Amino acid sequence: MKVNGKNYQTVWLQGSSVFLIEQNLLPFEFKIYEAKNYQDTCQAIITMMVRGAGAIGATAGFALAQGFLQAPKDDFWDYINQVKKEIEATRPTAQNLFYATNRVYQAAKDSSEPIKSAVVEAQKIAQENANEAKKIGEYGNELIKDGFKIETHCNAGWLGFVDWGSALAPIYVAIRQGKKVFVYVDETRPRSQGSRLTAWELKNEGVPYVIIPDNAGAYLMSQGKVDLMIVGADRIARNGDVANKIGTFEKAIVASEFKVPFYVAAPTSTFDLSCESGADIPIEQRSEEEVLYQSGPNSAGVIEKILVSCPGSPALNPAFDVTPAKYITGIITEKGIIKPSEAEVKKLF
Amino acid sequence: MKVNGKNYQTVWLQGSSVFLIEQNLLPFEFKIYEAKNYQDTCQAIITMMVRGAGAIGATAGFALAQGFLQAPKDDFWDYINQVKKEIEATRPTAQNLFYATNRVYQAAKDSSEPIKSAVVEAQKIAQENANEAKKIGEYGNELIKDGFKIETHCNAGWLGFVDWGSALAPIYVAIRQGKKVFVYVDETRPRSQGSRLTAWELKNEGVPYVIIPDNAGAYLMSQGKVDLMIVGADRIARNGDVANKIGTFEKAIVASEFKVPFYVAAPTSTFDLSCESGADIPIEQRSEEEVLYQSGPNSAGVIEKILVSCPGSPALNPAFDVTPAKYITGIITEKGIIKPSEAEVKKLF
Repeated sequence: MKVNGKNYQTVWLQGSSVFLIEQNLLPFEFKIYEAKNYQDTCQAIITMMVRGAGAIGATAGFALAQGFLQAPKDDFWDYINQVKKEIEATRPTAQNLFYATNRVYQAAKDSSEPIKSAVVEAQKIAQENANEAKKIGEYGNELIKDGFKIETHCNAGWLGFVDWGSALAPIYVAIRQGKKVFVYVDETRPRSQGSRLTAWELKNEGVPYVIIPDNAGAYLMSQGKVDLMIVGADRIARNGDVANKIGTFEKAIVASEFKVPFYVAAPTSTFDLSCESGADIPIEQRSEEEVLYQSGPNSAGVIEKILVSCPGSPALNPAFDVTPAKYITGIITEKGIIKPSEAEVKKLF
Repeated sequence: MKVNGKNYQTVWLQGSSVFLIEQNLLPFEFKIYEAKNYQDTCQAIITMMVRGAGAIGATAGFALAQGFLQAPKDDFWDYINQVKKEIEATRPTAQNLFYATNRVYQAAKDSSEPIKSAVVEAQKIAQENANEAKKIGEYGNELIKDGFKIETHCNAGWLGFVDWGSALAPIYVAIRQGKKVFVYVDETRPRSQGSRLTAWELKNEGVPYVIIPDNAGAYLMSQGKVDLMIVGADRIARNGDVANKIGTFEKAIVASEFKVPFYVAAPTSTFDLSCESGADIPIEQRSEEEVLYQSGPNSAGVIEKILVSCPGSPALNPAFDVTPAKYITGIITEKGIIKPSEAEVKKLF
C-alpha cells in the first residue's frame, strides 16, 4: 500500500537484509529499519517493530532465510537449528511464526540448494500472505456499494499483514475500482490503534475518513450514517464467535440494534477449530498503564507520556472481547464470505 | 462531600467572599479560589472554574449577593441592575443562572433590608440545590442492594452541584448507610470526565472503583459484572428521551441487551417540557481538538498537551447523544423515581 505516494509492504527481504516499517514509531514518524542479519530481525520481532500474525510470520521466515545466508559451511545444520530456536523464542505465542520457520526449514532440507530454497520459500510465504489479504479485499469489496460509509474498529489494515490487510482490504479494493467510500475510524481506546494506525493508513491511501470517539457509534448509526461495519479478528471459534479488540462486542450489539450489517474480515488461519465457542478463548488482561497514561508528541514534537486520569486510580484493561456469532452478519475470508455458523466454518477446512 | 478527609461544597459564600473549588485544575491539583468581589466571581464562571447547572446557578446567586455588599449608597439600584446584567452575560445559555439572579434580586426588592435579604436568598438557593441532590441520592439509594456493582458514564457527581450530585448521589447515600458498593467508571472520551472527575470524587469519598475504557462496557455486562447503571442528564424531553454525554445511548442499548437496569438521575429542573421528544434537542458539535489531543502532567508534573492521533486527521466530536425513553428503566428525581413516559413526566410538574 501507499506511504507518501510510494508503494510499500510492511516487511521484505532484499539481498541479505530484511527491511521493516518501524511500526512503533507510527503515526508520528515513518522509518524503514534495515535488519542486516537474523539477529537484528529477531530483535525487530521482540521490540514489536512488526505486528500482526501474518507480518510476524513472514518476518520470521525471512529471519530464517538470513540464517541460511549467514551459516558457516562447517556445522551448517547445527548453526541453522540454533538460529531456528532463537527465532521461535522471540514471540513464542505467535502461531504463524512457527508455521513460517517450519516451512522454510523443510524446503531447505528437501533441496540440493538449501540456501537458495530457504530464500525462495520465505519470499513465497510473504507473497502468500499478501495474496490472501488481497483475496479478502476482493470478496469484501462485493459488499460495498458506491457512496458507502463504513465504520471500523481498531486496526485490521495492511500494517498487520505483509500487504492489504483484512478489515481495510475491501475498502482498498473498492477505492481502486473507483467507488466512493467514506470511513468512520473508531479511536479504539485504550491503545488508540484506530486514530493512530488506521487513520495513518487511510490518509496515505487517500481514503476519506474521520476519527470518532468510541462513544459516538450509536449516535452515528441512529442517524443512519453508517452503511456497513467491518472489523478484524484475533481468533474465531468453531461456532463463529469472534475474539477481537475490546469494544468490538459493543459495536456489534449497537449495529444489530440499528440493522447495520456487521462483518468480520480475517484469513482462515485465524480460525481456531479447537475452540468450540468463544467461551474457550482466554481474554488477555493488559497493564492498567495503557488506560491511565497516553503518549504522543507535544507542540515541540517531543514524545511525552502523560497521565490522563485521576492520580492513584486503578484501571481495568481487557485487551479483547468475544462477540457471539448471532451479532455477526458474515465473515470475509480469502476463500469467500461465510455465515458465522459451525456448518459454514467447517466448509472452509 | 469529602476531599482529603475534609468536607467541602463546590461553592460557598463567607463574609463578602465567594470560595470555589478550581475545577479546571482537577484531578491533578486541588485548590480553593477566593473571589473577593462579584467581578472575580464572574471571571470564575467565565473561565469554567465552576461547572454544572446547579453549581453555576448557586455561584451566580452568590455573585449578585456580593454585588449588594459592594453597592454604593448612592445609585444603589442602578449599580445592582448593572451587576445583574454583568453576571447574566457570563454564561448566557445557563438557565439556572437567570433563575438564581432573579430570585436574589426579587428577594432584595421585596425587603426593607435588601443587602441582608440578598445574602440570605443566595444562601437559600445553594442550600436548596444541595438538598435536591441529596433527595435524588435517597430515592436512588433504594435501588442499590448491598454488594452492588454500578457502572456510570461521565461525571454527574457533586462537582456539578453544590453538593451530593445526581448519578453519584445514590452511591454516596448507600455508602453512608454501610452498603458495600463498587463502581465501574467509564473513562468517557473524549474529555474523560469519568477517569478524571468521577474517579477523583470516588477516591476522595473512599468508594471502591476502577476506571474502564468506554469500550469495555459490553464485555463486563456480558459477564454479569454490572448490577445497575446510573448516568446523569443534560436535558430530558417531555416523553422521557434523555440527552446526555456522548456514549450514554450506546451504554443504554448494551445495558438493555443484558437486562442491566439503566437509570438516569437528574433534578426536575433538567426537564424541558418544550421539547416533545429527543428529536427537538439540538446536539452540540465540539472542537475536534478534544479528540485529537490530550492534556495531563508528564513525569515531571508539568501539564503537557500531546497529539494522540495520526497527524493531520479530522475528527468528529458530538458532545451529547439522545437516548430514547424505551432504553431507560427509570428517572431518579428529587421528587421520586418515575418511568420515562409523558404521563409520568407530567405528574412531576
